Amino acid sequence: MKPIKLPVNLTGLMNFSLGYKHCPQKTGLPPGTPVYTGSAPAEPIQIELIDYNENELNQTKLKSLEDCFVCKDTPTVSWINITGLHDIEKIQQISRHFNLHPLVQEDIVHVGQRPKIEEYDDYLFLVMKMLTYDEEKQAVESEQVSFIVRENCLITFQERKGDVFEQIRERIRSENGRIRKMGSDYLAYALMDAILDNYFQILDVFGEKIERQEEQLLSHFDKVILPEIHNLKRDLTILRKSVWPLREMAGGLERSESSLIHAETHAFLRDLYDHTIQIIDTIESFRDVTSGLMDLYLSIVSNRMNEVMKVLTLIATIFIPLGFVAGVFGMNFESMPELKWHWAYPVGFWGAIIVIVSVMVWFFKRKKWL
Amino acid sequence: MKPIKLPVNLTGLMNFSLGYKHCPQKTGLPPGTPVYTGSAPAEPIQIELIDYNENELNQTKLKSLEDCFVCKDTPTVSWINITGLHDIEKIQQISRHFNLHPLVQEDIVHVGQRPKIEEYDDYLFLVMKMLTYDEEKQAVESEQVSFIVRENCLITFQERKGDVFEQIRERIRSENGRIRKMGSDYLAYALMDAILDNYFQILDVFGEKIERQEEQLLSHFDKVILPEIHNLKRDLTILRKSVWPLREMAGGLERSESSLIHAETHAFLRDLYDHTIQIIDTIESFRDVTSGLMDLYLSIVSNRMNEVMKVLTLIATIFIPLGFVAGVFGMNFESMPELKWHWAYPVGFWGAIIVIVSVMVWFFKRKKWL
Amino acid sequence: MKPIKLPVNLTGLMNFSLGYKHCPQKTGLPPGTPVYTGSAPAEPIQIELIDYNENELNQTKLKSLEDCFVCKDTPTVSWINITGLHDIEKIQQISRHFNLHPLVQEDIVHVGQRPKIEEYDDYLFLVMKMLTYDEEKQAVESEQVSFIVRENCLITFQERKGDVFEQIRERIRSENGRIRKMGSDYLAYALMDAILDNYFQILDVFGEKIERQEEQLLSHFDKVILPEIHNLKRDLTILRKSVWPLREMAGGLERSESSLIHAETHAFLRDLYDHTIQIIDTIESFRDVTSGLMDLYLSIVSNRMNEVMKVLTLIATIFIPLGFVAGVFGMNFESMPELKWHWAYPVGFWGAIIVIVSVMVWFFKRKKWL
Amino acid sequence: MKPIKLPVNLTGLMNFSLGYKHCPQKTGLPPGTPVYTGSAPAEPIQIELIDYNENELNQTKLKSLEDCFVCKDTPTVSWINITGLHDIEKIQQISRHFNLHPLVQEDIVHVGQRPKIEEYDDYLFLVMKMLTYDEEKQAVESEQVSFIVRENCLITFQERKGDVFEQIRERIRSENGRIRKMGSDYLAYALMDAILDNYFQILDVFGEKIERQEEQLLSHFDKVILPEIHNLKRDLTILRKSVWPLREMAGGLERSESSLIHAETHAFLRDLYDHTIQIIDTIESFRDVTSGLMDLYLSIVSNRMNEVMKVLTLIATIFIPLGFVAGVFGMNFESMPELKWHWAYPVGFWGAIIVIVSVMVWFFKRKKWL
Amino acid sequence: MKPIKLPVNLTGLMNFSLGYKHCPQKTGLPPGTPVYTGSAPAEPIQIELIDYNENELNQTKLKSLEDCFVCKDTPTVSWINITGLHDIEKIQQISRHFNLHPLVQEDIVHVGQRPKIEEYDDYLFLVMKMLTYDEEKQAVESEQVSFIVRENCLITFQERKGDVFEQIRERIRSENGRIRKMGSDYLAYALMDAILDNYFQILDVFGEKIERQEEQLLSHFDKVILPEIHNLKRDLTILRKSVWPLREMAGGLERSESSLIHAETHAFLRDLYDHTIQIIDTIESFRDVTSGLMDLYLSIVSNRMNEVMKVLTLIATIFIPLGFVAGVFGMNFESMPELKWHWAYPVGFWGAIIVIVSVMVWFFKRKKWL
Repeated sequence: MKPIKLPVNLTGLMNFSLGYKHCPQKTGLPPGTPVYTGSAPAEPIQIELIDYNENELNQTKLKSLEDCFVCKDTPTVSWINITGLHDIEKIQQISRHFNLHPLVQEDIVHVGQRPKIEEYDDYLFLVMKMLTYDEEKQAVESEQVSFIVRENCLITFQERKGDVFEQIRERIRSENGRIRKMGSDYLAYALMDAILDNYFQILDVFGEKIERQEEQLLSHFDKVILPEIHNLKRDLTILRKSVWPLREMAGGLERSESSLIHAETHAFLRDLYDHTIQIIDTIESFRDVTSGLMDLYLSIVSNRMNEVMKVLTLIATIFIPLGFVAGVFGMNFESMPELKWHWAYPVGFWGAIIVIVSVMVWFFKRKKWL
Repeated sequence: MKPIKLPVNLTGLMNFSLGYKHCPQKTGLPPGTPVYTGSAPAEPIQIELIDYNENELNQTKLKSLEDCFVCKDTPTVSWINITGLHDIEKIQQISRHFNLHPLVQEDIVHVGQRPKIEEYDDYLFLVMKMLTYDEEKQAVESEQVSFIVRENCLITFQERKGDVFEQIRERIRSENGRIRKMGSDYLAYALMDAILDNYFQILDVFGEKIERQEEQLLSHFDKVILPEIHNLKRDLTILRKSVWPLREMAGGLERSESSLIHAETHAFLRDLYDHTIQIIDTIESFRDVTSGLMDLYLSIVSNRMNEVMKVLTLIATIFIPLGFVAGVFGMNFESMPELKWHWAYPVGFWGAIIVIVSVMVWFFKRKKWL
Repeated sequence: MKPIKLPVNLTGLMNFSLGYKHCPQKTGLPPGTPVYTGSAPAEPIQIELIDYNENELNQTKLKSLEDCFVCKDTPTVSWINITGLHDIEKIQQISRHFNLHPLVQEDIVHVGQRPKIEEYDDYLFLVMKMLTYDEEKQAVESEQVSFIVRENCLITFQERKGDVFEQIRERIRSENGRIRKMGSDYLAYALMDAILDNYFQILDVFGEKIERQEEQLLSHFDKVILPEIHNLKRDLTILRKSVWPLREMAGGLERSESSLIHAETHAFLRDLYDHTIQIIDTIESFRDVTSGLMDLYLSIVSNRMNEVMKVLTLIATIFIPLGFVAGVFGMNFESMPELKWHWAYPVGFWGAIIVIVSVMVWFFKRKKWL
Repeated sequence: MKPIKLPVNLTGLMNFSLGYKHCPQKTGLPPGTPVYTGSAPAEPIQIELIDYNENELNQTKLKSLEDCFVCKDTPTVSWINITGLHDIEKIQQISRHFNLHPLVQEDIVHVGQRPKIEEYDDYLFLVMKMLTYDEEKQAVESEQVSFIVRENCLITFQERKGDVFEQIRERIRSENGRIRKMGSDYLAYALMDAILDNYFQILDVFGEKIERQEEQLLSHFDKVILPEIHNLKRDLTILRKSVWPLREMAGGLERSESSLIHAETHAFLRDLYDHTIQIIDTIESFRDVTSGLMDLYLSIVSNRMNEVMKVLTLIATIFIPLGFVAGVFGMNFESMPELKWHWAYPVGFWGAIIVIVSVMVWFFKRKKWL
Repeated sequence: MKPIKLPVNLTGLMNFSLGYKHCPQKTGLPPGTPVYTGSAPAEPIQIELIDYNENELNQTKLKSLEDCFVCKDTPTVSWINITGLHDIEKIQQISRHFNLHPLVQEDIVHVGQRPKIEEYDDYLFLVMKMLTYDEEKQAVESEQVSFIVRENCLITFQERKGDVFEQIRERIRSENGRIRKMGSDYLAYALMDAILDNYFQILDVFGEKIERQEEQLLSHFDKVILPEIHNLKRDLTILRKSVWPLREMAGGLERSESSLIHAETHAFLRDLYDHTIQIIDTIESFRDVTSGLMDLYLSIVSNRMNEVMKVLTLIATIFIPLGFVAGVFGMNFESMPELKWHWAYPVGFWGAIIVIVSVMVWFFKRKKWL
C-alpha cells in the first residue's frame, strides 16, 4: 500500500492549534516580546494606504513608515494595510505610534493565535485566519490577518503578499458603493466578510472530495480510498478546531457595545455571525458524513470477505469430500471387490459423486448461500 | 455491487448548509447586493394579493407591482404573496417601498439561508424552508420562503409556483374562521404551521424507510441494504443540520417582545415551538435507530461469516484427514503388509474412517459447533 | 434467521415522537380544531365525579354532561375524570364551560403531545403519558392523560377505560388521608405520582431483559440474541425520547409561581421532579449497558471465529502437507528407488510423518495456539 | 466459556438508580408514607449520642428514644446517630419530635434516593451513599446515610451497623481538635468527607483492575478477559450514574445561603466539592480508558485472526498445488510417457516442486507475509 | 506480542486524578492536617528569596526560615521560593506566619490537587502542575507548584529541585524588563506562563508521536503499532482530564475582582487564558485524530485479511477441483476405458484442466478479485 500524499496540508492547519510549535526560540522570552513565528519568506515590509470619504479617494503605496502616521487623526477613513511581519522594528514603531498594548504587538507577529476579539480603550483588536485553497499544490494555505479598528482608521497586518481583498478595494474605488459612506468598522466588516467567503470555497473542496469518495465507495469499491477517508476525517477535525473559535469571535463582535461600532453596522455583524454558524454547521455535517463513510467502508470490507469466504467454502466443501472418494478408490488394497465390478466406475462412482454434489447444493440453497 | 439511486435528493438538502455553494458569481460582491442563488426555473414574477378583515375579502392576482403598494397602510390585513425571485429589479422595487434593510433584500433572494428571525423597527423578517416530498421523483424538494411581517400586512416570497398554503387560503375564504378575526402575525403563524405540517410528512417517509429496512435486515438479510442504510443515515444527518436552527427561530419568535406580535398569538407560537421540538426529537431518534441498524448489519455479517466458517471447518477438518488416510493406502511402496491383509480394506480402513469421524463429531459437539 | 416478535410494541412508542403520524386527515385543518388522533376504540364518553373536602365525600358516575358544571364554583375539591375522547362535541362543550383555550382543546384530543405544562390565567394545563405494561401481550401500552388544574377543581381526560388511579381513589375514600385536607393541586400531584410509579414498573421489565440477555451472552452464547439486543436498544432510544420532556415538565411545575399551586404542595412537586430524574438516569444507564452488550456480542463473535479458524488452520496445516507426502509415494514413476527399499514404508514414510507433525505442533505451541 | 463471577455487585449498585425496584409493596401508598425499602437485616434500632462543646464531652448509647429529645435545644453540639431503619414507628417518633416534613421521613427509610440536599426552614436534609469495599466478598456495599443538620444538633440515619465514622469519633474525643470548637455544620461536613474518602478507596480498586487487565491484554493476551472488561465498563457506567448527583449536592451545599452553615465552614465545603469533582473526573477517565480496552481487544483479536489466516494461507497455497502435481503423476493413464523417463522423478518432479515453492515464497515475500 | 514500554509514565499522570491514591496513611486524618503525599525524595527544605523593585535587586538563599519573615511587609516585591515539602513543621511555621488557612496548608503538601484558584481575604491561593518532559526516561514528570499571592509578596512551593523558572529569574536580574516595574501579581502570571510554555513542549512530543504512527500505519503497516496507539489514546485521555481544570482556573483568575490583581495585569491574564484554551483545543484534536488512527488500524487489518483470504480462495478453488480430477484418474477400477485411450492424458486430461482453470479465472475476473 503506497503512502498517499495528503491533499490538505496538515502541518499548515496544525499551526492553528499548536501555536508555539515552530518557535522554540520563543520559549522563555518575556510575554509581550514580539517575534515573528510564521513561515512566510522574509521580505521587506510593504505599506499600502487607502484614504477615503464619501467624496475623496487616495490610494498610495507608502515608502516610509512615518507617512502613515499623519492619518491617525484625519476625519477621512484610512485603511493602512501592512504586509510582511519580519521587520519587528518597524512593527513596533507603528504599534507605539498607535499606542498598542505590548500583548497586541506580540499577537500580531506571533501568528499562531486563535481567532479572537479584544476591546481596548480606543481600539478593537481582531485576529482571523485567511484560508486560501492553492489549486496547484492542492493545499490549504493559512495566513494570520490582524485588524486594529480605530475611529476613522483601520490597520491590517498580513503575513505575505496576495490577499482576498481585491474586490473590496474595487468597491472602495467605485464612487457610489455603500462602503464609501460608512466608517472604519464597516470596512473591517467588509474585509472579514471577504475572508469568510473564502472559507466557503474550501468547504466546497471538502464537499466535492466527500461526494467523490462516497460515489467511489458505492459504485466501484477500491481499497486505495481508505487512507483518503482517514485524511479527510483528520483534516476536518483540525479544520473544525480552528474554525470553532470564529463563532465566539463573531458573536463577541456582534454583542460588542464598543463605541467604535456604529449602530448601522450591527445588522451587518449579525450577518457575519450567521455566516460563521453556517460554516461551522457545514463542517459538523461533513464530519458526520465522513465518519459514516468509514463505517460504510468497514461494512463493505466485511461483506466482501463474507462473499469470498462463501465461494471458498462452496468449492472446498464440495470437492474435498469428492477428493476423498476418489482417493478411496485409488488405494492399493489387494481385496477391494468393488474395483472389480464392471459398472462400479461409471455407475457406482459417478452416481456417488452426483448424490454428494446434489446434497451439498441443496444444503447451500437452504442456507441461501447460492 | 450496483450504485444505488438515492431516494432523497442529497444535493438539494446540502444547499441548506453549504449556502454559497452554487453561486461563485456571488463571491466578492458587496454585502447587500441581491443575486438569486437558487435553482428554480426563471419565470416572470407573480404577485397574489389577499386582502381581508372580519367582513370583507378580496383575492386578486396583481398585474403590476405598484398595485400592491396601496395596501401598505390600509387597516385590513393584506397578504402579498410573491412567487419567483429571478427579477431582482422588481424585488428591489418592493423592498424599497416597504423600506427593507439591504441585508434583508439580499437574504430573500440569496436562498441558502438558515431559518432565522430578525427584528427590525417596523417589521419582522423570518426565513423558513418549505420541504415537500415529491412522490414521483422520490426526492425531497426544498424551497426558501421569506416572511415580512408588518402591522396589517404580510409579504411572503417563494422561489417557485406551488405551495402548501392552499388550505390556509381556503380558511381565509370561509367567513367564520378564526383567521379572519386576527392580524398579520396570526396569518404568518398559520403559514409557518402549514410548512411544519409538511415536515411531519417527510418524517413519515423516513420512518417508513427505517422500519422497512429494519424488517428486511431481521427477516431476510440482504446485502443490497447496506448503501441504503448509509444513505438514510447521511440524509438524516443533513436533514438534522437544516432543521436544528428552526428551534432557535421558533424559540426566538415565541419569546419575541415585538409589538407586531399580539398577546393572543403567543399561545399559538408556543404551539409552533412545540411542533419544532417534536420534529427535532423525532429526527434524533431516527438517527439513533439508524446508527443501530448499521451496527446490527455489521453484527449480522460477522455472524454469517462465522457460520460459513464453521461449515468450511467442519467439512475440511473431517475430510482432509480422511483424504490423508486414503492417500497412505494409495502409495506404491513394495512392502506395505497391510495392503495384503484380507480384512484390511473393509474392517481396517473403514474402521479407521469411522473412528476418525466419530472423534471429530464428538469434538465439534463439545465445542457446540453442531 | 427467523424474524423476532418485538416484546415492546414499537409502534405504540413511536406515537410519542411522530405525533401527527396517524392523522393525515388532520393536516390542513386550522390550528385549534379538535380531532381525536389516538387508537382507542370508539366508546361513549364516561364522566366520573369525586367531590370531597375534609369532611364530606361524594363519588358518582354522571349521566349527563351538565351535571359536572355545577362543581365549577363549589368550595369542595372536585375531580372530574373524563374517559373516552371520541365524542368531540362533548369535549368541546366541557371545554367551553371551563373556558379552555382552543389549543388546549386540540391538545387534549390530539394525543401525540409531548409531556408539557402550560400556564393560563385561571388554570394549569398538563399533559402526561400513562405507560402500562401488558403482561399478556408483552407490550407497553401508552395513553395520554391531560390535566386541567383549577382552583378547587381538577379535570382529567383519558383515552380509554382502566387506569392506575385506583389507589388514589381509595386514599380519597379513607377519611384520614392527607389528600382530603389539601387542594386540587395536591390531587393532581398524587395522580401524576401514581403515573410515574408505573414507569418504574416498565423500567423493571427492561432491567430484567438486560440482565437476562447479559447472562445469556456470557454463559451460553446464542446467536438468536442479536435482534433482541437491537430491539432493546431501539426501544430504549424511543422510550428515552418520550421520557426526556418529563424533566422539563416536572421542573417547570416545581418552579411554577402560579397561585394555583399552594406553598405546602411545592415540597411534593420537588419529590416528583426527583422521581423524573431517577427515571431518566436509569434509562441512560440502561442505554449505555445495552450499547456495551452490542459491543460484547461483536467481540464474542470475533473471538469464536478466531477459535474456529484456529482449528481449521491446525487440521489443514498438519494434514495438507502429509497428504502431499502420501501423494508423492503414490506416483507411478517407473524409477522411484525409495519405493523398493524394504524399510521405506514403516521407517522412512512414517518417520517423515512424525517429524512433520512434531515440527507443526512445536510451531503451534510457540504461537500459543495449542 | 464459563460465566464469570462479577467482582462488583451489580445488583447493589443498581439500587441507586432503580430506586423503587425492590419495593412493590410501596407502589400505590400515599407519598410521605415511610416504608423501609433496603435490604439490611431487621435489627432493633440503636441510638448513639455524642454531646460536646469545646470543654465537655459526653458519649452514650441511649436505651430509650426519649433520651435524645432533650438535646434538641441544648447549646452543646449533639450528634444523634441512629442505626437501623426497620422500626418505622420509632423513626416517625423522632421525626415528629424534630418536626421533619413527611417527605423527609419517607426519604430517610426509602433508601433508593439520589444524593441530594433539601433546605427546610429550621434544618437541612442531606442524603448520601456510603460505599464500602468488602475485600472478602469482593463487592461494593452501599448504604444510605441521611443527615438532618439543625442548629447545635446533627441527626444521622444509617441502615446497618458499622460505618466509616470511627476516626471522626476519635477526633471528637481528642480534646484539642478543630471539630470541638465548631458547630453541627462542621460535624456534618467531617462525616461527609469521611464518606467521600472511602469512594477513593473504591476508585483504587477499579484503577487496579483496569491496569491489571490492560497489562494482561498487552503482554499475554487471554480471551477470558473479555467478560471482565465488559463488567468493568458496565460497573463504571452504573457507578458514574450514582456518583454524578453528588456534584449537584456538594455544589448546592457550597452555594447554600442557609443560616445553619457558618461562614468558617464554607471553605471546607468548597474542599468537599473539589473532592467530588475529583471523583467524577476519575470515573470519567476510567470509563474512557475501559472503552479503549474494548477497542484494543477487538483489534488484537482481528490481528490474531489475520495471523492465523496467513499461516493457513501459506501452507494451503504451497501444498495444495504440490498435491495436485503429485496427484497428476499418480494417475493410471496407460500412455504417460513422462513416467517412463528415468530422470523424471528425481529431476523433473522435484525440480517442478522446487520451482513452485520458490515462486510461492517469492510471492509471499513481496506481499510481506513472510 | 511483547509488552510495550509506555513512553509516557501513566502512573505519574494518574496522580492528577486519583489524588488520594498513594496516601492510605492520610485517610481518616482531620481535614486540614498537612501530610506530604508526593513521591519526591526527602531532602531538606530550600528557601530562595528574590527581593526587587524597579531600582534594587537582592537574590539570596536563606539559611533559616525566619529570614524570610521580614519581607512580609516591605514595599519591594518579594518572591519566596520554597523547594521540598517533606518538612511539614517548617511549612506550617511559614503558613502560620503568613496567616494561611489550614486547608491551604493541607493542599500545598497534599500534592494530588486539581489546578484551582481560591480567593482569601488578603491572599490568593493558586495550584498548578508543572509538567516537564524527561528526554532520557521518555516520561512526563509532574510536580505540583502552589502560589500564595500577597500584596508585594509571592510565595511558591515546589516539590523538588529544578524548575522552568530560570528565564524569569534572568528577566528579573536584567534591570530594564517590564517585570521589575510591576507587582507580585505580574510575577505570579509570569511564572504560570512559563509553566504553560512547557505544556506546549509536551504537546509537541505527542504531536510527533501521532504523526510518526500515522505515517507508519499508512506506509509500512506494522502490527507492533497497536499497543502504541492505545497508549497514546489512553495518555491523552489522562492528560486531558488533568489539563481541563486549568481552563476553570485561568478563567477564574481572569474574571477575579480581587484587589491583589492590578488593572494592568488583566490583559496578561486574558493572554494566559487564551493559552490554556489553545492547549485544551490541541489535546481534543489529538484525541480525535488518535481515535481515527484506531479505526484506521482496524480497517487496514480487515483489508489485509480480505486480501489474504482472496489469495487462499484463488489457490484453493483452482487446485482443489484439479486435485479431484487427478484423483479420479488415479483410481484403480478395472474398467475405466478412458485410461486406455491414447490421447486421454495429453488431450483429455490437460484439456479438462485448462477448461476448469479458464472458467475459474473468468469467474474471478468478473468478481474483480484478480
